Amino acid sequence: MSRQQIFTGEEYSRRLREVKHRMAAAGLDLVVCQDPANMNWLTGYDGWSFYVPQCVLVHLDEDLPIWFGRAQDRKSALMTTGLPEANVVAFSEHLVQNPDGHPYDELADLIRSRGWAGARIGVEMDAHYYTARCHAHLVAGLPDAAFSNNRDLVNWARLVKSEPELTLMRQAGRICTHAMSRAVERMRPGVPQNAVIAELYHAQIMGVDGMGGDYAAICPLMPVGEGTATPHLTWNDDPLPDSGLAILEIAGVRSRYHVALTRTVHFGKPLQRYQDIARVIVDAVDAGLEKARSGNVAEEVEAAWQAELRRNGLKKESRVGYPIGLAYPPDWGERTASLRPGDRTELEPGMCFHMMAGVWLEDFGLAISESFVVTDTGGEKLCAAPRQLIVVD
Amino acid sequence: MSRQQIFTGEEYSRRLREVKHRMAAAGLDLVVCQDPANMNWLTGYDGWSFYVPQCVLVHLDEDLPIWFGRAQDRKSALMTTGLPEANVVAFSEHLVQNPDGHPYDELADLIRSRGWAGARIGVEMDAHYYTARCHAHLVAGLPDAAFSNNRDLVNWARLVKSEPELTLMRQAGRICTHAMSRAVERMRPGVPQNAVIAELYHAQIMGVDGMGGDYAAICPLMPVGEGTATPHLTWNDDPLPDSGLAILEIAGVRSRYHVALTRTVHFGKPLQRYQDIARVIVDAVDAGLEKARSGNVAEEVEAAWQAELRRNGLKKESRVGYPIGLAYPPDWGERTASLRPGDRTELEPGMCFHMMAGVWLEDFGLAISESFVVTDTGGEKLCAAPRQLIVVD
Repeated sequence: MSRQQIFTGEEYSRRLREVKHRMAAAGLDLVVCQDPANMNWLTGYDGWSFYVPQCVLVHLDEDLPIWFGRAQDRKSALMTTGLPEANVVAFSEHLVQNPDGHPYDELADLIRSRGWAGARIGVEMDAHYYTARCHAHLVAGLPDAAFSNNRDLVNWARLVKSEPELTLMRQAGRICTHAMSRAVERMRPGVPQNAVIAELYHAQIMGVDGMGGDYAAICPLMPVGEGTATPHLTWNDDPLPDSGLAILEIAGVRSRYHVALTRTVHFGKPLQRYQDIARVIVDAVDAGLEKARSGNVAEEVEAAWQAELRRNGLKKESRVGYPIGLAYPPDWGERTASLRPGDRTELEPGMCFHMMAGVWLEDFGLAISESFVVTDTGGEKLCAAPRQLIVVD
Repeated sequence: MSRQQIFTGEEYSRRLREVKHRMAAAGLDLVVCQDPANMNWLTGYDGWSFYVPQCVLVHLDEDLPIWFGRAQDRKSALMTTGLPEANVVAFSEHLVQNPDGHPYDELADLIRSRGWAGARIGVEMDAHYYTARCHAHLVAGLPDAAFSNNRDLVNWARLVKSEPELTLMRQAGRICTHAMSRAVERMRPGVPQNAVIAELYHAQIMGVDGMGGDYAAICPLMPVGEGTATPHLTWNDDPLPDSGLAILEIAGVRSRYHVALTRTVHFGKPLQRYQDIARVIVDAVDAGLEKARSGNVAEEVEAAWQAELRRNGLKKESRVGYPIGLAYPPDWGERTASLRPGDRTELEPGMCFHMMAGVWLEDFGLAISESFVVTDTGGEKLCAAPRQLIVVD
């Protein structure tokens, strides 16, 4: 009954060993993973069911994880993971969106039934779907357990990608390059914004060379005109303008692995100032990529980028990058290291980042980003899109 | 600097009055709304920024809500809401995904600075993005406040749609019908699954008659073959089979308003049993729609549906429907009423539901759903797609 798992059993075993190693070091017996990317990374589980409470349990003494979720998704778990039936546990349907009971009442029952009522349990306190109510019901149901924040222990274990993961990342990069190219070709004055996005989605999902694309953890973002001063606006059906800026931020996705990219288009002849800023951004990314080699630390990449900006009278307040890889909505970032001052995470080959290189000012913004994998000699770009302010004149 | 707001100021004032009325009845001074759909419904705020903590505050004594979010999204708030600058408050950038500090430390500061440190505060304990850590930091920062679960008070206020909202719902229904039709035309043996989905996304976003489509809160779901036994599987790039079932569940979306629809395709000549089940589902939906009139209660719609199934030796364990409307990922359901036994919510004209009509058995499933708006005479369908098992032979 199995759809093919994306990775070998040995890959999943290696991941589990890595997580258990981190659990032992953190003094945890059991971790409750609700982040859908952690669930997938640990077991292969894949389905759009993360709008109800669900999780994967990893216990130090167990050979395999346990999937816990909605009854109607149990078959999805059996089909997408290699887990035996005994490790795929469903909660009662009436607990879905029930103001009184909660699925995690039954998760507490499950944990007790395995003899883990007094365990040291690490939960993902800030994972997007681990709500305040999930936590309250779990804690109330396990009064003898010792709860703590596991500080995204599984997310940290995901930071360095394996070779099979890097293969998917490189495929995602090719899909991303292709989709960006198709969208930019469609960006012409008078074309409705949604027509650009329709073309983009089509290219993202068709993929390249028979390698289909997957849905992205963030929808395409396309601020236009003054909207370029803020990064997270989406499209409407207004026509693109005859003059001014538009930014497009997208991902290419292959089997849930994401590579992100941002480009900026100018309609009509751009001010020299925009051209100058674009050149500084490209140079500053080069400076960052040069530092993105094993042995350096995360903040050094940011410092190199920021120095180049400062030398040109510019700055960017927010972090300039974050790790990317396996992801589900609402974010393709991994919530671990950040390319920002104070982050001393040591770079290792196989870490992947989106360097969100842009400058946002009061009334406009420009962004020309790159996704890269850390190597011994610097950041290796995952896309091959032209790096410049794209002028449509 | 404003993009056009979707609704008039009077519409937003009416919504705010309705929420304050419910707050007074619940004994709350202040509600903290993190559900992105609630944020939009109260203020018009629209942007893909819900992967970081953000919220809208409504205080009983204030004329307008307060938007609280990331600095780089502040401009989006000024552009998409009618709020004055003083009501758009940003947190410090270094708090983004910071293991030590949290944005809601500064939300607590904001609440204290307004003199509300001792308020009765209702939070959305089970909203998808209101994490355990959001709650812990907010509670720690406001030791004199009285916290309680507001039990999705704003979601409940959204249940009955206004006329301007129903206009968008009907447009979304037309987009949904169109997108389903385009996708089904593409579903032929041998066509890669992702090619169907690429076409579908294109149609969803192009929309109809110049009315562009928006991104959906759930990606297209397309279980194939044995996968039809479970509802939340997504596509891959395998070719569609020469025989067997495939289910497609999608939404049409207009300005964030969702209408959902499910259809089932059979490749090759179907078993008589499948034809029979499909006919029962269609009849049972008709029975439910007939009961979906003002004055009846939610469980009566389910009972009519279930009676028709039972009469034919079938059943569906999970609820048969949920409210739809304004939504963001990860769910287009509104998390309030359910069409299930025990739900005594009185139906009123303007409530909109997705009747998720399907039967899932051990090795296959069939689903033929309808979205509808409650009227005085029954459920009015929001889509106009043919209602039958679609046979591709």
